[in-house]
Amino acid sequence: MAISPQETIRRQNLGALLRYVHLRGATSRAELTAGLGLNRSTIRALATELAAAGLVREEIPPASGRAGRPSPVVRTNSASCYAYALTVQRDHLRAACVGLGGRILDSFTARLSPGTGRTETVAILARLLGRLQAQAPPGGALLGYAVAVSADGPSATELAAALPHDRPLLIGTPADLAARAEHARGAARGLSNIVYLHGDAGISAGILTGGQAVTGHGGFGGQVGHMVVDPVGHRCRCGSRGCWETEAGEPALLRRSASGDALTVLAAARAGDDASRASVRDVARWLGHGVANLVNILDPEVVLFGGVLREVYLAAADEVRARVSGMVLPAFREGVRLGVPLLGEDAPLIGAAELAFESLLNDPLNGV
Amino acid sequence: MAISPQETIRRQNLGALLRYVHLRGATSRAELTAGLGLNRSTIRALATELAAAGLVREEIPPASGRAGRPSPVVRTNSASCYAYALTVQRDHLRAACVGLGGRILDSFTARLSPGTGRTETVAILARLLGRLQAQAPPGGALLGYAVAVSADGPSATELAAALPHDRPLLIGTPADLAARAEHARGAARGLSNIVYLHGDAGISAGILTGGQAVTGHGGFGGQVGHMVVDPVGHRCRCGSRGCWETEAGEPALLRRSASGDALTVLAAARAGDDASRASVRDVARWLGHGVANLVNILDPEVVLFGGVLREVYLAAADEVRARVSGMVLPAFREGVRLGVPLLGEDAPLIGAAELAFESLLNDPLNGV
Repeated sequence: MAISPQETIRRQNLGALLRYVHLRGATSRAELTAGLGLNRSTIRALATELAAAGLVREEIPPASGRAGRPSPVVRTNSASCYAYALTVQRDHLRAACVGLGGRILDSFTARLSPGTGRTETVAILARLLGRLQAQAPPGGALLGYAVAVSADGPSATELAAALPHDRPLLIGTPADLAARAEHARGAARGLSNIVYLHGDAGISAGILTGGQAVTGHGGFGGQVGHMVVDPVGHRCRCGSRGCWETEAGEPALLRRSASGDALTVLAAARAGDDASRASVRDVARWLGHGVANLVNILDPEVVLFGGVLREVYLAAADEVRARVSGMVLPAFREGVRLGVPLLGEDAPLIGAAELAFESLLNDPLNGV
Repeated sequence: MAISPQETIRRQNLGALLRYVHLRGATSRAELTAGLGLNRSTIRALATELAAAGLVREEIPPASGRAGRPSPVVRTNSASCYAYALTVQRDHLRAACVGLGGRILDSFTARLSPGTGRTETVAILARLLGRLQAQAPPGGALLGYAVAVSADGPSATELAAALPHDRPLLIGTPADLAARAEHARGAARGLSNIVYLHGDAGISAGILTGGQAVTGHGGFGGQVGHMVVDPVGHRCRCGSRGCWETEAGEPALLRRSASGDALTVLAAARAGDDASRASVRDVARWLGHGVANLVNILDPEVVLFGGVLREVYLAAADEVRARVSGMVLPAFREGVRLGVPLLGEDAPLIGAAELAFESLLNDPLNGV
């Protein structure tokens, strides 16, 4: 059936209002009027329609003492719609039920013992999901299953075989999804050009330019860890020498330490151990080196350090900054901010949920 | 005045039809019906309206001998609307009048003697433009002035001071605009993830991901030439050591040669001169090194070598390819094609004109 132009616009407006409160939380009708550039009666009609569908609630705030009636406040009904967001990390899995508005309603975590195969990984993931499903919000609508998984992890085919098929299965890399989450409701809110770096065994990036995700042709772009920064550097697991992740990632921290854990090296550096401090400083300089390359290529407004890179950056921000300033072109020196994510470990999970919310936010009454 | 939803859609459809014939040349109504997903009577009405405005012409092709009437062919009227496209290169300036459909109707070139300052450069550019204006298509509508200029060249302010103000002034980097042109009507047509490399004194990139230009926060992203590929390499004019452009660009070709011209070194290599051949091979390997980094970061479908890099690539494609294959992750190895631009020296000029056509193509009867 053809949709009339008026109906198209009404749906767009419903989506714009729902997206606004989904991302910003409870908002007065007066602010919605200003923020969306629509008139008061349109906002009232849209909010009423979304409330009738159970997607939002409207409340009259208590009288403020100022003259006039207070403007009703619109907020999402977080149990009305939810997504299952799953993350596959090297050493653990997480499964969460994320409600409209981006709230984590419920979550489970499972540790992975080293060497757990892909088949067993997806089986554990399916069991975590089962536990979540047993406690699903009564009466809520499930929007989809969204998984944050790196190129090394289980494939889309393996995930699809183990997970339910009643709703769409959406997949992204942890770094891409964390970047999306920090953009939507974290440290990069309101910015359009973002590099989010995630460090664990490797280094990967979630990149947004002009507000759009740079996922590349095959969906696994952002493999910044395999940018070669030192042609005579250490051998990388990929076969090259001197990849950024071998010089600035966990492998570099562990190479000169008896400890098998990067956080232990960082703690020893904080406690004043000279060898650990030298190691952290060296890693920080290579971290800055790669960041400078990315800034010269992409001209972002912000670079966020996630995972173990967060700790490296916090331990040696001066070294990182000095190297970046020394290497980026003068034109970019003032423009780029370095910082850490706001959503921490939850970022990939929340970003995955945002993927699943997208079709609802585009067309709230038909997009489910 | 508010625009009705029907009117919005009619304008979008007019734009879609005009863009189709602008990019693809003469097209039958039957192909437009299929290509745009609109019905025959709508296509007829839209084409009639664009023809009445003088933007397109409709012609009945000669009878083909097949049964039935031949479908009328729609083509742009290239003199109806035009843009002035200007390029500032290191050693020369070009100014062209580009008609709707992307045809260069007229152009002038001026050589720049070494050391020509910015003030004189913009003065010469303004004079070239004046010569074009004296021969403007009679009755055509001027859409805008578009300039391809790198970050080193005259600034937007300097250009605005020297050029007319009767129509918009649009500015982009030569690499960004060449990428746009190759995407619209060149070697990267139909592809969404593109890296176009331009080599002259430096190396810069025009990057598209998901069909969108990656210009960065300040509009001068793509400074890939200052990606450091060899921390103990040669000193770059930017102050760093081992920037990609010092190892793989013109400076590297000239460093080991008595000649002051990269093309002479390349010709000597072709003629079998051993030193020149070694130099070209070395440069080609560093070229591949940087390309591999960009592929790992951006996962493009195609990398195009423009400017002097075109000649380096054609002279030593095997070395470039071998280095790229050796360094990119297996997932990307099959996906990326290396090649040369189709539009050659005209690419920045044609891309600049595309910038100026954009508002017309979005809204043909109101966008001028």
